[in-house]
Amino acid sequence: MQPQGIRIRGLRGIPEVSPGDDLVGLIAASSGTVQPPAVFVVAQKAVSKAEGRLVPLESVVPSGKAEAWAARHGKDARLVEVVFREARRIVRMEKGVLIAETSHGWICANAGVDSSNAPPGYVILLPADPDASARRLKAGLEARLSEPLAVIVSDTFGRPWRLGLANVAIGVSGLSPLIDYRGQRDSYGRELRSTVLAVADELAAAAELVMGKNLGIPVAVIEGYRYPPGEGSGSSLIRPREQDLFR
Amino acid sequence: MQPQGIRIRGLRGIPEVSPGDDLVGLIAASSGTVQPPAVFVVAQKAVSKAEGRLVPLESVVPSGKAEAWAARHGKDARLVEVVFREARRIVRMEKGVLIAETSHGWICANAGVDSSNAPPGYVILLPADPDASARRLKAGLEARLSEPLAVIVSDTFGRPWRLGLANVAIGVSGLSPLIDYRGQRDSYGRELRSTVLAVADELAAAAELVMGKNLGIPVAVIEGYRYPPGEGSGSSLIRPREQDLFR
Repeated sequence: MQPQGIRIRGLRGIPEVSPGDDLVGLIAASSGTVQPPAVFVVAQKAVSKAEGRLVPLESVVPSGKAEAWAARHGKDARLVEVVFREARRIVRMEKGVLIAETSHGWICANAGVDSSNAPPGYVILLPADPDASARRLKAGLEARLSEPLAVIVSDTFGRPWRLGLANVAIGVSGLSPLIDYRGQRDSYGRELRSTVLAVADELAAAAELVMGKNLGIPVAVIEGYRYPPGEGSGSSLIRPREQDLFR
Repeated sequence: MQPQGIRIRGLRGIPEVSPGDDLVGLIAASSGTVQPPAVFVVAQKAVSKAEGRLVPLESVVPSGKAEAWAARHGKDARLVEVVFREARRIVRMEKGVLIAETSHGWICANAGVDSSNAPPGYVILLPADPDASARRLKAGLEARLSEPLAVIVSDTFGRPWRLGLANVAIGVSGLSPLIDYRGQRDSYGRELRSTVLAVADELAAAAELVMGKNLGIPVAVIEGYRYPPGEGSGSSLIRPREQDLFR
């Protein structure tokens, strides 16, 4: 199925991204010869910066609730206020940890609001619509590289039960993020059950291995993986609340 | 850090594994020339089968509790009984779903007990000690292949909040499963905080892309990834209960 194996490389030479930058142009200029099938995995932070999703903390007036919680846990009340604004719902708020459901439906620390790798005095928000970001990147890269390809916008989330963060897909365009093996048969001819694999998350995780956290490599290209076709969307990876025993 | 990129290939030609099989020999015979640094990711099911972790359902006498729950949800009471035996604790038991903490501390569906790809009439348990399995595989493969390498025993788990399953590491030998970036600096010189990446899980996820569920490829080799050194263990990926807001 993946006869030649898969290759993953990080794109070097992409400068620090600023609002209004032509992210497609920066990626295309760094990508070299791309061998289809190819999936571009782009770190959320580069997408958010190019899209201007930066908030200057000096512009933020915290609510009394944000002030109180920040004081109790030694946090910046303005950052807490931005998290509250980005959150559709606070899932857990204890021991200095804010786990929130974002307006998109993602559950993650601080509703995705982050100051690392942000310009001084700013925090970075998640893209307003990561699937739309992925679609724009896909269209732009296909126009520049003349090949059909898929794009994943990734972010690094924590998870219950397991230590450490892992990269996941929050925006997807050009591939089906889930492969459904139900109805197929195992090696004994028995029908496979409850086997839906989140390949977009596995691709995002694979890409993180070459991106690192402080390598300045916001984009990876995965070549040789015959991804499941489909327009796709990252939002289809959100487990509906009524099917989730842990919200 | 990963200058040449990463290559991932599935090993072909490994036959259906049976109890007592020389799994090291089967892997070594299929692996071709291995370019260090190399990580071997081995599916739990192949490890469990080689180690004889199979239970014939006809030998299982279900408890009244297993009978009652199975009847209510249309499950096989003997399978439920095996799950109860493998579980240290049942985390959730509703709507026909059994989520359990295994004796090792993993939280997963059915305490890792699975009938898919099991011989008819049998269910497969997780390895008794996946880290010991990984250590044995590492020692055996290094003796055969004359190279230092790392081994991950992987399994496919569901997770809260997100749809679909993803491959994770349950046994690790020869690499540190977590990279700790805390204390390092971002591109603006600001110290990175709370950034510990679960690279063993990301490697396991990457490997799943070439293993698939019904491809008969229980082993993948990841070459070119400069993994963080350490003896490592899968159990160090278990989030201690007191740090886990979701158990």
